[in-house]
Amino acid sequence: MEAPRLERKLVAILAADVEGYSRHMERDEAATLATLSAHRAIVDELVNSHNGRITGTAGDSVLAEFASVVEAVDCAVRIQDALASANDALPEEHRLRFRIGINVGDVMVKDGDIFGDGVNIAARLETLAMPGGICISRDVRDHVRKMARFAFEDLGEQSVKNIEQPIRAFRVRLRDGPSAVES
Amino acid sequence: MEAPRLERKLVAILAADVEGYSRHMERDEAATLATLSAHRAIVDELVNSHNGRITGTAGDSVLAEFASVVEAVDCAVRIQDALASANDALPEEHRLRFRIGINVGDVMVKDGDIFGDGVNIAARLETLAMPGGICISRDVRDHVRKMARFAFEDLGEQSVKNIEQPIRAFRVRLRDGPSAVES
Repeated sequence: MEAPRLERKLVAILAADVEGYSRHMERDEAATLATLSAHRAIVDELVNSHNGRITGTAGDSVLAEFASVVEAVDCAVRIQDALASANDALPEEHRLRFRIGINVGDVMVKDGDIFGDGVNIAARLETLAMPGGICISRDVRDHVRKMARFAFEDLGEQSVKNIEQPIRAFRVRLRDGPSAVES
Repeated sequence: MEAPRLERKLVAILAADVEGYSRHMERDEAATLATLSAHRAIVDELVNSHNGRITGTAGDSVLAEFASVVEAVDCAVRIQDALASANDALPEEHRLRFRIGINVGDVMVKDGDIFGDGVNIAARLETLAMPGGICISRDVRDHVRKMARFAFEDLGEQSVKNIEQPIRAFRVRLRDGPSAVES
């Protein structure tokens, strides 16, 4: 089989999902969908206002691409701040906390979806984030490290499922409060 | 926050993804996307011909709904047979094997996507399937058990991530060969 002609582009990839989504759905389906929908509206608006594009969603998972790494990280921090505020208005058992991973990759584009190793690594970084937090690759950190408003915590080399090479990962938050982003 | 008015419906839910997808992408992005695209064309065509509907895709993940449980199981068996044939034409390192989970659930519908505990359990059943195989819930088995063409293997009660109650799971295959579906 001949490989199709590939459209490729270098982007910042943001992967997000809800910590304990299945557990929340099992406990209260209607409330979980209501919160998820409200949170997703916040995510979608912030991705748009940072010149990003949602390339795929499935259940609680969101995948987005950004032409700028700085925009992607700034967007992620603002998403977590906005969702923390939204959660504050909810009873504890209805709060949904997204984890966010960000990577840089030269991705393949097909029918508007993005594919490739870089996308999968973004999803793995997401699993290393705290609920309400953000985890980024070394490449991403290198693009934003001079921006005084971000603070980084080096997690070192992390082994993740089905990725042969360990990934150097960093947690990120706004340096000056009040940021609700978990560090 | 008031819960939105929910559209609900009882459906058979089919969840599928590729075993070792990230590992394949890491090794050969272009070949993996080429095979994934070819396999997805087979999946899409069989879902349509069994009166199912693809409700969401993300990377290697596919979620589909069927009005009939029998159609969903028949579709899954035919998907695995067709993909096994397609894989036979490829060198071993380029073969992609889907795992399929099927559940019955009264799902919530929002913007064409389906949500709910039943959807998440379908995804967990999928993780219990062998590469190239199918895993179904007890509900699904009860709907198709009298159909002589299917054979079942009882996996007993399985504990899966973020679902409190263990799930009784069954592997399914076509009773009479030549079926390439792993049992």
